[in-house]
This record gives sequence, structure tokens and C-alpha cells, in this order.
Amino acid sequence: MKIARPIVALIESFTKLPGIGPKSAQRLTYYLLHVPQIQLDDFAESILRLKKDTKFCSICKNISETDPCPICSDPARDKSTILVVEQPLDILAFERTGRIKGVYHVLHGAISPLDNIGPDEIYVQELLNRIKKNELGISEIIIATNPTMEGEATSMYLKKQISLLDSKFKIRVTRLGMGIPTGADLEYADEVTLTQALEGRRELI
Amino acid sequence: MKIARPIVALIESFTKLPGIGPKSAQRLTYYLLHVPQIQLDDFAESILRLKKDTKFCSICKNISETDPCPICSDPARDKSTILVVEQPLDILAFERTGRIKGVYHVLHGAISPLDNIGPDEIYVQELLNRIKKNELGISEIIIATNPTMEGEATSMYLKKQISLLDSKFKIRVTRLGMGIPTGADLEYADEVTLTQALEGRRELI
Repeated sequence: MKIARPIVALIESFTKLPGIGPKSAQRLTYYLLHVPQIQLDDFAESILRLKKDTKFCSICKNISETDPCPICSDPARDKSTILVVEQPLDILAFERTGRIKGVYHVLHGAISPLDNIGPDEIYVQELLNRIKKNELGISEIIIATNPTMEGEATSMYLKKQISLLDSKFKIRVTRLGMGIPTGADLEYADEVTLTQALEGRRELI
Repeated sequence: MKIARPIVALIESFTKLPGIGPKSAQRLTYYLLHVPQIQLDDFAESILRLKKDTKFCSICKNISETDPCPICSDPARDKSTILVVEQPLDILAFERTGRIKGVYHVLHGAISPLDNIGPDEIYVQELLNRIKKNELGISEIIIATNPTMEGEATSMYLKKQISLLDSKFKIRVTRLGMGIPTGADLEYADEVTLTQALEGRRELI
């Protein structure tokens, strides 16, 4: 049987999304056949406007409706601390903690030689320029890339580049603490995580 | 932090889809920020056209670009056998077997009193009308609703209604065979399935 072309087209669009296989794409498409046209219009409109109505913040490269973004333009934020993340979603995670008084920098990826992503493919230079421009104003760079091979490589690269810049004044470059996550079961922790947890142990006070 | 409105809007649209929670919706939305605008345009277009460019086949209620649908208008199809399914997707599954020479009827649901879905909310009357109109032409109705409470209730209701219609001529009303699926492990089969399998046992020939 030939499936109607509009259905095939939407199944294909869904299949291109990460984590959605052909079966899920079919299910989603046939589900949408049962929703009112107005909901379809809204959905299509959201997709069309997603990139058109958002921009990169020229300072931190986060995605925002305004440039600079609400965080960079917030006078209450401490501009002397920059937390460096791979993706805009990571900012949401940190904002939920309510512990970040500083600002962010979004790299939009991590260094990954296997995928042909070097420092020039992500927003590394923009971070270095930001540091150069505000030399004396920045006291700490917190590197919060993912604890993966790529995130670690990016972290090491950033540390080296910032040290090269930072000959006359002292900027603290820190990395997120590594160890066992809250609520985890030690029995199932892998040896790398446990090693990190031992190395990162702290005095009880 | 306030997330940009276009991003929130798309996350909300994704969250309305079945099987997509808030986290997946976020991930999909931020993924789409990285795809070219042309792919977003295609995606939006597919959604907009999904219902506008498809129609119900007036005979079998399948969703199709043409009315009647390619199956109902195919002269090679045996119009004397009707396979009754709950959803258009079920037709795809049967077509993949290549064993159906007859035509279909899509109910677009199953009788489910708990969800306020009675026989009038699904395309039952249309099936009965179809049978009435072609009285002498129809030899078998295969009921292929799902093996769930709702599917079974629908099956029983259909059987009764067809018997009422079918006083002077004999239409075979059959139900899909139930039992253990190919490749299954008997150890894990539930008792209802095993009971069905025992009841549906066949002579080896």
C-alpha cells in the first residue's frame, strides 16, 4: 500500500529528530491526524518562529530573544565570574540551582577531533576575546563542560589558552567538582567516578 | 532565568505529543536550534499540510490523498472480505504481511465506556451501512481490533450487530487468531495468552 504523501513527509521530518525512530515517527504522525487543525497550526508556527525570533547573545552566545540576553544585561549579575558550558540547556540546569551569581559563556559544542570539531568550530575564541577585553574585571572562569572525553579535552584546552592570556594578572580557572552524584548507590559507581570522588574528597567541617 | 518565548512555545508543542515528556521536548527544541532554517520550514510545512492534504476514504475511512483510497479503488482487491481495524496504522502492519487480498474498514478507535467512547463515536455505523449496501457481495468480516478490553468489547459488539443485519444471508464473522506470538518465550507468557493459545490449538497436518 502507498501511504499518503503528506503522512510520509511528516514521518520523515520526525525521523530526523534525535531519539525518534521510524516507529515513533509513525505513531506521532498518526496521532497528529486526530488533533484539531488549530493545534497543528500552532505547532508549525512554533517551529517556523524558533530560529527567526531568537538570536545569539553577542556576549555569552546563549540563545535569547534580546541581544544582550537577559542574564548578560542584568546589572545584578556578577560579571567577574564566567561559567563556561557546552549547550544553552546546561544554563537552565545551573539556573535551577539558584547558586550562580555570575554570567555564562556557551561554547555550542565541545572539542571532538573524531567529529572534526576543533576549537575554531565552537565559541572558544569569543570566550578568549571576552577575557582579553575585561582583563582586570574577571576573577574566575568555571569550566562546566560535560565529564566526557570531549568535555575534558575542551576543559584542558581552555585552561591552557587562558593561562597563555593571563600572564600579568591572576584569573582562577576552576573545573566543576567530580565525584558521586547525590542519591547514587556506591555499589554501582564506576571506578573512574570513585577515583574522582577520592581525589576530590573534602574535610568535614 | 526566563527562557526565550519562541523556545518555550515549541517545548510546549512537543510536550503535547504522546510519549514526549518535558525533558525530551527541551532536548528536541534545542536540537532544532542547530538545524538549517530550510529543514525547519520543511517540518512546519509537513505539519500544516498533514490534515489539509489528506482526506477520509468515504468507503473504508482510511486516511488517504484520494477518495476512494488506493485500496478501495484497486480493482484487484477482493471486495467480499473486509478486515476491520482500529487505526490506519494497523493497515500498514497487515499490508506488510502481503496476505490481505481484501479491503479494510478503519473504526478510528474502539468502544471504551470509561473514556466515554461508545459505538457512535467510532465508525461502526459506517461499517454496518457498508454491509447493508453490499449484502450479497460480502462473504467475510475479519475483526482485527486490538486484543485489549476495548478491542474485545468492540469485537463482540460488531459480531452482535452484524448477526442482527445478517438474517437472510450468511456472512462469516471471524476474529484474529490469539495465542503465543512468534519468537516469544513460553516461560514469560501470561496465563490469558496461554489459555487463548490452548483454546486456539490446531491439528498438525
